Amino acid sequence: MNSENFTLSEKIVSASYIRQASEARRGHEQLIRHLLEQRKCPEEGWSEATIELFLNELAVMDSNNFLGNCGVGEREGRVVSNMVARRHYRLIHGIGRSGDIAAIQPKAAGSSLLNKLTNSLVLDILKMAGVRSVKSCFVVPMATGMGLTLCFLTLRQRRPKARYIILPRIDQKSCFKAMITAGFVPVVVENVLEGDELRTDVDAVERKICELGAESVLCVHSTTSCFAPRVPDRLEELATLCAKYDIPHIVNNAYGVQSSKCMHLIQQGGRVGRIDAFVQSLDKNFMLPVGGAVIAGFEEAFVQEISKTYPGRASASPSLDLLITLLTLGASGYKKLLSERKEIYVLLAEELKKLASAHGERLLHTPHNPISLAMSLDGLRADCDQAPTQLGAMLFTRQVSGARVVALGKEQSIGGHTFRGFMSHSESYPCPYINAAAAVGITRDDVALCVKRLDKCLKTLRKEAKPLQSSSPLPSPNSS
Amino acid sequence: MNSENFTLSEKIVSASYIRQASEARRGHEQLIRHLLEQRKCPEEGWSEATIELFLNELAVMDSNNFLGNCGVGEREGRVVSNMVARRHYRLIHGIGRSGDIAAIQPKAAGSSLLNKLTNSLVLDILKMAGVRSVKSCFVVPMATGMGLTLCFLTLRQRRPKARYIILPRIDQKSCFKAMITAGFVPVVVENVLEGDELRTDVDAVERKICELGAESVLCVHSTTSCFAPRVPDRLEELATLCAKYDIPHIVNNAYGVQSSKCMHLIQQGGRVGRIDAFVQSLDKNFMLPVGGAVIAGFEEAFVQEISKTYPGRASASPSLDLLITLLTLGASGYKKLLSERKEIYVLLAEELKKLASAHGERLLHTPHNPISLAMSLDGLRADCDQAPTQLGAMLFTRQVSGARVVALGKEQSIGGHTFRGFMSHSESYPCPYINAAAAVGITRDDVALCVKRLDKCLKTLRKEAKPLQSSSPLPSPNSS
Amino acid sequence: MNSENFTLSEKIVSASYIRQASEARRGHEQLIRHLLEQRKCPEEGWSEATIELFLNELAVMDSNNFLGNCGVGEREGRVVSNMVARRHYRLIHGIGRSGDIAAIQPKAAGSSLLNKLTNSLVLDILKMAGVRSVKSCFVVPMATGMGLTLCFLTLRQRRPKARYIILPRIDQKSCFKAMITAGFVPVVVENVLEGDELRTDVDAVERKICELGAESVLCVHSTTSCFAPRVPDRLEELATLCAKYDIPHIVNNAYGVQSSKCMHLIQQGGRVGRIDAFVQSLDKNFMLPVGGAVIAGFEEAFVQEISKTYPGRASASPSLDLLITLLTLGASGYKKLLSERKEIYVLLAEELKKLASAHGERLLHTPHNPISLAMSLDGLRADCDQAPTQLGAMLFTRQVSGARVVALGKEQSIGGHTFRGFMSHSESYPCPYINAAAAVGITRDDVALCVKRLDKCLKTLRKEAKPLQSSSPLPSPNSS
Amino acid sequence: MNSENFTLSEKIVSASYIRQASEARRGHEQLIRHLLEQRKCPEEGWSEATIELFLNELAVMDSNNFLGNCGVGEREGRVVSNMVARRHYRLIHGIGRSGDIAAIQPKAAGSSLLNKLTNSLVLDILKMAGVRSVKSCFVVPMATGMGLTLCFLTLRQRRPKARYIILPRIDQKSCFKAMITAGFVPVVVENVLEGDELRTDVDAVERKICELGAESVLCVHSTTSCFAPRVPDRLEELATLCAKYDIPHIVNNAYGVQSSKCMHLIQQGGRVGRIDAFVQSLDKNFMLPVGGAVIAGFEEAFVQEISKTYPGRASASPSLDLLITLLTLGASGYKKLLSERKEIYVLLAEELKKLASAHGERLLHTPHNPISLAMSLDGLRADCDQAPTQLGAMLFTRQVSGARVVALGKEQSIGGHTFRGFMSHSESYPCPYINAAAAVGITRDDVALCVKRLDKCLKTLRKEAKPLQSSSPLPSPNSS
Repeated sequence: MNSENFTLSEKIVSASYIRQASEARRGHEQLIRHLLEQRKCPEEGWSEATIELFLNELAVMDSNNFLGNCGVGEREGRVVSNMVARRHYRLIHGIGRSGDIAAIQPKAAGSSLLNKLTNSLVLDILKMAGVRSVKSCFVVPMATGMGLTLCFLTLRQRRPKARYIILPRIDQKSCFKAMITAGFVPVVVENVLEGDELRTDVDAVERKICELGAESVLCVHSTTSCFAPRVPDRLEELATLCAKYDIPHIVNNAYGVQSSKCMHLIQQGGRVGRIDAFVQSLDKNFMLPVGGAVIAGFEEAFVQEISKTYPGRASASPSLDLLITLLTLGASGYKKLLSERKEIYVLLAEELKKLASAHGERLLHTPHNPISLAMSLDGLRADCDQAPTQLGAMLFTRQVSGARVVALGKEQSIGGHTFRGFMSHSESYPCPYINAAAAVGITRDDVALCVKRLDKCLKTLRKEAKPLQSSSPLPSPNSS
Repeated sequence: MNSENFTLSEKIVSASYIRQASEARRGHEQLIRHLLEQRKCPEEGWSEATIELFLNELAVMDSNNFLGNCGVGEREGRVVSNMVARRHYRLIHGIGRSGDIAAIQPKAAGSSLLNKLTNSLVLDILKMAGVRSVKSCFVVPMATGMGLTLCFLTLRQRRPKARYIILPRIDQKSCFKAMITAGFVPVVVENVLEGDELRTDVDAVERKICELGAESVLCVHSTTSCFAPRVPDRLEELATLCAKYDIPHIVNNAYGVQSSKCMHLIQQGGRVGRIDAFVQSLDKNFMLPVGGAVIAGFEEAFVQEISKTYPGRASASPSLDLLITLLTLGASGYKKLLSERKEIYVLLAEELKKLASAHGERLLHTPHNPISLAMSLDGLRADCDQAPTQLGAMLFTRQVSGARVVALGKEQSIGGHTFRGFMSHSESYPCPYINAAAAVGITRDDVALCVKRLDKCLKTLRKEAKPLQSSSPLPSPNSS
Repeated sequence: MNSENFTLSEKIVSASYIRQASEARRGHEQLIRHLLEQRKCPEEGWSEATIELFLNELAVMDSNNFLGNCGVGEREGRVVSNMVARRHYRLIHGIGRSGDIAAIQPKAAGSSLLNKLTNSLVLDILKMAGVRSVKSCFVVPMATGMGLTLCFLTLRQRRPKARYIILPRIDQKSCFKAMITAGFVPVVVENVLEGDELRTDVDAVERKICELGAESVLCVHSTTSCFAPRVPDRLEELATLCAKYDIPHIVNNAYGVQSSKCMHLIQQGGRVGRIDAFVQSLDKNFMLPVGGAVIAGFEEAFVQEISKTYPGRASASPSLDLLITLLTLGASGYKKLLSERKEIYVLLAEELKKLASAHGERLLHTPHNPISLAMSLDGLRADCDQAPTQLGAMLFTRQVSGARVVALGKEQSIGGHTFRGFMSHSESYPCPYINAAAAVGITRDDVALCVKRLDKCLKTLRKEAKPLQSSSPLPSPNSS
Repeated sequence: MNSENFTLSEKIVSASYIRQASEARRGHEQLIRHLLEQRKCPEEGWSEATIELFLNELAVMDSNNFLGNCGVGEREGRVVSNMVARRHYRLIHGIGRSGDIAAIQPKAAGSSLLNKLTNSLVLDILKMAGVRSVKSCFVVPMATGMGLTLCFLTLRQRRPKARYIILPRIDQKSCFKAMITAGFVPVVVENVLEGDELRTDVDAVERKICELGAESVLCVHSTTSCFAPRVPDRLEELATLCAKYDIPHIVNNAYGVQSSKCMHLIQQGGRVGRIDAFVQSLDKNFMLPVGGAVIAGFEEAFVQEISKTYPGRASASPSLDLLITLLTLGASGYKKLLSERKEIYVLLAEELKKLASAHGERLLHTPHNPISLAMSLDGLRADCDQAPTQLGAMLFTRQVSGARVVALGKEQSIGGHTFRGFMSHSESYPCPYINAAAAVGITRDDVALCVKRLDKCLKTLRKEAKPLQSSSPLPSPNSS
């Protein structure tokens, strides 16, 4: 309501009440003003009422919501289903233009504002989460894998002769396909085993660069967040190498925003060496529906280049979800989530340690992995070959999701490349194991239930196993 | 409510009423059964109540909505904002898996079902709309341009030596960038002027193929829906050429589903020659928010290859919107929309013809373009050079959206290629003009308002122009 | 967004687009301004977007949505469930104050505005629907029956000696209980049979007044809308009587707003004689959820007296529903609904006439009843006593709702009064019959389906009946 | 989805995932089953997903949502606005029938179930909150005042000769009007001052009964929750008196459900003497929108009599809100809210005590009032007569809501009765004061902000006052 309408209201409801209401409305507007001025995530979260008010305001700025609009184009933001219109808060025009996913749209000032603000807010959050030197970023409505592909396609235009992408081994299909889809040949560099941890073999990477010739390497493609016992790549060393050989460096930071360690690695890599872009998932870091990523970098020009590589408009849905979520949480709310996650990570480690010891197994020692943990399953190996798979199925049936059982010796071919010991990031990891992660949003209940059910499954498996064996595989003292 | 709960309800509310209610519930379930059995768009649309019931049912099939679930993975479908959860009907897991955007997800049976059904329903609609022989299709959460890029990237793996894509000229940034982003060199073949129409120069395409060598051509990239006076490409001839030279053929059918002519062209092309895939926009054809496309083809294997090229999961948002929309409309509702569009296209043509004649202009004769129309602006040219631009601005201010004013002689460079006469699909179209389109969802009011406002603008421009001119540019009798 | 926020937005999105957006926002605000100025139902309906914007604006005017509010009262508009808050658009404070249901609330300027505006809008609609002289009205969150009770309780304070309420017979429980609950003795005056119609026996009413003594009569309680073959009371004559004897007159106009005839009767009654208040249902006339009524009158003072009789605050829910509905429809939309209803009434009459004739029955001739129709069921009577009841059950099972089968000779006691021939408004109506009504919102499909199913039921009943009878009840020529 | 549909789904998505989904769906159904079986508030709250699923299930049981329904009645649950339909979850038929607000409706099995269940759940909560012997209750869509009126109207039919209602003085308009609206003469019995507390003068009540004659007294109308320094009535003694003289006893327990003390008083009263009904507000006790009440009693027959007195159907809106809220909270959630309230009451008392002492005032000693507190404003009296009013206005402007400033000597006439010292429950309370209450839902922030702002206001008032006074009213040591 503008001031004129407030004045009219004074004739209907007593003036002093209306004045107070108008004053109170200003409170909501101040929040919006602050947001428009600062373009940062507000410290305190907003109420649903304020967020909806703001989204409604954005919606009426788009031409499809103009009362007097007449449309004779091929795309006019018309929506035939009311359910669809509502669930998008009537923001229909998406984001970007033909030339650039970050561009503003003449037909949709509100959606454009939403897009710009969301990108600003998430930039602020990336800084807060540890990459203080990040310069620019933007949301794309595609998951991490396709986001990486977009980075590689952008680099192609800069390095037309390059054919290879060097990947310190990570056993994850999407990021591998991301390179193949972009038309490049992934060159996998095996990790080294340090204690229980699998870590980047930096020397091998350098050797590979020399072997292939720097100009034929599109980029080094490193990874932070990953399943234990692999740990985040040695970003500082890799970034230094990339700077030395003038090779681009793209980091898959899939769910690393939630970990100060991962973010610190990127910040350091960017400081001492070269990181061209790092890509993170919206769903995994910000608890959104699957399907969005943030592409960020230390140099505005390159980030813009990527955004201009996206051909055409795109869905505003992930941006909208992110904006709602960041305004709901506020910076303080997000920080709180992150610190709770950290605490529960410690709890999960303790609980798994206890469980491991009770079953004659051990929690693998992977201090460099801040999110994922692994517990050995040596007992199962002794029992029976199918045991790990069976354990996986049992956990699935008991509604334990995300606990990933890794057997030994699996082979898998992806895009022509054969991975031996697939899923374990290593050709021959010493033992089978089970992963559990403490990702943002995890609760103490998740930990308690998971450990309890896992305990039951392990007991059941052992019982089933016994009759088949002459000597029962008692936990040996040296296994823990 | 299952039968047990209905029985319990009989103790609270009288049995005969509960029995009737249970009977009535079956009505909704029959609709769902029919959908699951037929996997076709139901003939009659569903009520919002049935659609919501169905979406709720899908949601409770996903693990994030299991009451007893505990999650220790890195992606558990947790959502921090209630507003976000609600607007996605609590379907959070997106679609696809690492390997394939069409794959089913163990954690999300409901989302997987949604994805599969939506793809089936839209396949049914594509058949109904005219491409009776289409074999397979899938929804991607990216707009047409990026959808085309995905097709080109898929073809690359089949044709590693190819470097060029042949494009019968179409002045539209996204589809041009789609080729460059995929890493290919677009080779533009100018159109020929037949009457007022700009049509495919099939001979020139063939010459270009021979010149470049078939094996170095990734594909021919043709277009159906486009702005008049360009008309849809001669798909039959191009498809025949592609078959002859064994070159893939990708069709940009951006907003062509809404036109039986465009769909017929594709059907014929596929029948007599070769079309590998055709890509269409969800927003433009089905009145959804921007950001989704359907990629379809005549051969299941190749369509699957494309879907497997997409690295990782993706947003379910466009699939959800499409499912809701198709269930709301039903096949009959969609057909009705299409036939209304056709009628209003005729109306728009008539109204523009009258307007043109009143202003000494003429409606360009472009009978092969079933959606877009163009009216000459010769008078403006005589007046003043800035006039077309000024007309565009005037229409924008008067909330006429989508009416596109095309001046002569504009040059534009995209990805290294310079287009002369940009926007007009021709190096030197004979006259400036203004476009208006009758796209699905257009109303008679849109036509009336647009023509009225355009009339006013033209009058205003003429008035302003007069004092500057000695002889006023009276409409000559032969111009109409 | 205020102008300051628009200015800030210009720094983020280009100024000309923001200016257009700000201009467009003014369009919505103009609608609101017009509403606040005129306080009439807008001629054209509003879009959902504008209505939601307006409701959001009202909500932020209520103290429970103030950002800086702190509450230490016993009622602070706190809501624990987000689902509840949302479905009420965060308007929590209800309407009215301790003293008066129409009073404004200091804590809730927005809810107060909503209440005042809704009352103004519905007053406008009552005028438009035919009671041009109505002076005042207000919405109460109770159905018609309780609304009548409130009127009677208000009159009690004016006429402390009165004990009786005179009711021209209408067989409807709620309105009968309304009098008993208010503590009065209903005095039923039987109707007279004129042709097929049951009409007010005005002379009998006058005799009853004289018999009881005017001062001991609280009021005459008349009825407009009712089931055929009863027809609306002779309001002019009753109103004249009431004026003559200085007796208040309360009209139950339950679903009469939808009929110009009922409204005309009230207008005439008010003009030539005395009508103190008339009460109408919100659900029946405006297609809202059950539970609201409008109490209206020709004298502002008495209407206020009623509103002041309501002790305490009340739910804003019916007012909110009504406001949304009237803004959605606009005056033109409501008029269109009413004229469609009229057309379908004619259709229903025709179809029932045909059906009646096919079954040897007749459509009762009740031209004074503009909504309800009755078809004789003489055939059933001949067949079997339970037949009418059985027909009712059959129709229920076949999902024909609202078709009311009236058998003869039923006796019912309500609050000490025994009705003979209950449901038929008459001690001995000549024949059993079935009612069907064309109420607002009815569709042609409703009519077609109802007639079809009724036809089937009647055929089935006849078949079942035949074996039991020696002579089949052939339709006699004089029965139609 | 029924089992047939799950089976069909197995052909689309892999069978094991569908089986797990079907298993998981059973989880939600078990919750519903448990609810239908126990008809008690579940111990743990339900998720929004389960609640919406349940409401959708209820909705499809109502005839307006039957797919094949055809309606020819005057009330068919049609809704013209989609916004309205949605916000009521498509439950349109309200609750009750002509004869009884608690009756089930043939057209609306779902709404009937909702109504019955809600009444059962709230009965369970009343027991849990302390009135263990309560037998029956029902929700009415009217606030406490009108709920009391309904009780009095019901009693009238039992006691036709009664004219008076005895009210231990409580200065609250609604409950006073409730008696007058019902047509009775309130007889106010002044309270006695015990320390700072105002308590029931039981002897005076007995004298009044004898004076008027028991048979001419409709009932005693007592109050639990009220503003300090009044405290809840001596229910045990009053109930004993009522039993002795065979007079009905109606208790206004407006916001007493939230206090175990108030509930205990009712339980004891019912045990040792006579309480016919007690009425409580939904909004105040359960944090719902204004407009609903629960009427409860120790005897099923009388409670049914009240529900049958309500003439006609009624809005289901408050029942729906209550059901959603109770299912959201669960019994444990509600208990938690109550215990938090108790804690914050203690905090508020402490904070006010400190504040009082800093300003030379004192917190009145009212240990029998478990919700409301009062702090003296002696200083203001000394300053200036308008000061209390001014303080009220200042607090309003500063968005402190619910803090009620009570000046001395105000006179107010309601329904013919003149209250001296209005608002203070006493003809001459010793000092002016300010009230603050710790009602359910209050937060620690509310307390902190209120005390801070009140402190500022008091300081400002003192400053303004000083120049006008020769001797500044220094806090005397004995005032605290």
